[in-house]
Amino acid sequence: MAGDPMTHVMRCTQCGAEAVINMPQHRLKLCGDHLVAWTTKMAQKAIDRYELFTLEERILVAVSGGKDSLALWDILHRLGYASEGLYIHLGIDHEGYSDRSQDAAQRFADEHGLTLNVVNVQTVYGKSVIEAARRRRGGRTCSVCGLVKRHIMNRMAYEGGFAAIATGHNLDDEAAVLLMNTLHWDGHYLSRQAPLLPSIHPRLARKVKPLVLLYEREMAAYALVRQIDYVMQECPYAEGASSIFAKGILNQIERQSPGSKHQFYLGFLRARKGGLIASDASADLPSETCAQCGQPTMAGGLCAFCRLWEAAE
Amino acid sequence: MAGDPMTHVMRCTQCGAEAVINMPQHRLKLCGDHLVAWTTKMAQKAIDRYELFTLEERILVAVSGGKDSLALWDILHRLGYASEGLYIHLGIDHEGYSDRSQDAAQRFADEHGLTLNVVNVQTVYGKSVIEAARRRRGGRTCSVCGLVKRHIMNRMAYEGGFAAIATGHNLDDEAAVLLMNTLHWDGHYLSRQAPLLPSIHPRLARKVKPLVLLYEREMAAYALVRQIDYVMQECPYAEGASSIFAKGILNQIERQSPGSKHQFYLGFLRARKGGLIASDASADLPSETCAQCGQPTMAGGLCAFCRLWEAAE
Repeated sequence: MAGDPMTHVMRCTQCGAEAVINMPQHRLKLCGDHLVAWTTKMAQKAIDRYELFTLEERILVAVSGGKDSLALWDILHRLGYASEGLYIHLGIDHEGYSDRSQDAAQRFADEHGLTLNVVNVQTVYGKSVIEAARRRRGGRTCSVCGLVKRHIMNRMAYEGGFAAIATGHNLDDEAAVLLMNTLHWDGHYLSRQAPLLPSIHPRLARKVKPLVLLYEREMAAYALVRQIDYVMQECPYAEGASSIFAKGILNQIERQSPGSKHQFYLGFLRARKGGLIASDASADLPSETCAQCGQPTMAGGLCAFCRLWEAAE
Repeated sequence: MAGDPMTHVMRCTQCGAEAVINMPQHRLKLCGDHLVAWTTKMAQKAIDRYELFTLEERILVAVSGGKDSLALWDILHRLGYASEGLYIHLGIDHEGYSDRSQDAAQRFADEHGLTLNVVNVQTVYGKSVIEAARRRRGGRTCSVCGLVKRHIMNRMAYEGGFAAIATGHNLDDEAAVLLMNTLHWDGHYLSRQAPLLPSIHPRLARKVKPLVLLYEREMAAYALVRQIDYVMQECPYAEGASSIFAKGILNQIERQSPGSKHQFYLGFLRARKGGLIASDASADLPSETCAQCGQPTMAGGLCAFCRLWEAAE
């Protein structure tokens, strides 16, 4: 537990070897090996606690080429889950962001003998996400990108017969979204934000987040120890995003009181389960089918995804 | 609306005179006269919207000698409400804090021909709040102080036949408490925090907060313009309090997005009214009466206030 007073080397709480990370919120210092074991156990704990998926199901892992999604894929593979990856090339040129991210995802897949499915938005739909967002009146890049990714993930999961789409959202991501939704008391999002979004239609896959119990810095340490070669660059369009601001706020609160992020997010899930916050299990069921792509939609005619490309012509 | 490009003088949005305050969250810059009128109108709006009290009722204003409570008393007096003040001398010696605060409250009362009731805790109960807290095992000064103030306010309101106790909590105070309760998803407090706490027993007065629509800096400007001679020193025991940390966090969010504090607190009240957050109207009704002081209590025997002094003997 204690550090070495002579050299100030941090010691692993579990084996006494040199620690690579101190996690005051868990009163743990861990060496590389024990960090990998602990992180994997926490992912398994989330899979079990929130009943995300079983060993019999095939999982499509949405990989961006960043640390979280590649670490997630690594963990699921090590835990014996049947998975394939999905990389969506969005056509972001800035310092070769999309190309480099695809390379990182492909390298990881090749090294581990895993299958990576790639959808290049420009090739398949004729325009990059950036172009589509630019031509759409009032379209913000991030919201257009979200729409495109959701559509493609649902399509690929449906066509490939996957039981669920797994994303690498960690506790920091979820707590930041929660903080923003709480500052606005956004009932729609507060009633739904969850580690598991069940499938409400055969063509809309179950969405799962196995990393919700893990801090961002724990994932970064995991990726480092496991020597995962990921892209460190953030998406250039994310700069100034409110989620980054919210993460900074939460990190201040965490420094003041270790464990706050954990308590904030998990306390929220517990409070909703306990009835403090209304839970909207009866999500808006899409009643129509898009005449073009066949995915379900709320209104008649084309779905939002297909309307995007029409508008961007 | 615009400032003067030559001198950079801010102009009052309403009359063009030199402005003393810029309130970007309301898109308003106001001169001293219009600030006083606007602040008064916002207090009246809170009194009406939350049905705090009527012109027929007598109000006991809890005054600490600080800007908010004296400004509140000033506003209620100017609006024609029948009020008396209550100053509770807690026996805080640090730089004469309690004595100086009492002087400020008394000066204000004398200048305006108002009645100030003073309860000196040391004189009446034999010990200062600080001594009582020190002798009580595990008693934190702030929670002991809160207990003592609540008891005395209830006693004075009951004995004086006041309809309600008004406190100077402003929007910053309420938003900070809300943030702390939200970070912990504390259902007990989240279901109750409100501008009005109804009386649930003849000896427990209605509690009202007419300043909940006003930012702290608006209250400071009001006190300045109205030349209210208040004590600027904060209670020395409040240093490092989590509410001060929470206020700092909220001020950062406010700078990033003006109006956030307003939206956070008022959005919360709306969300609870709309059913997003469970509301606990059926507060714990005290079923017993304290054998010593006669105030209601949850358990039999002595109330928490009377037990405090027993323990501090």
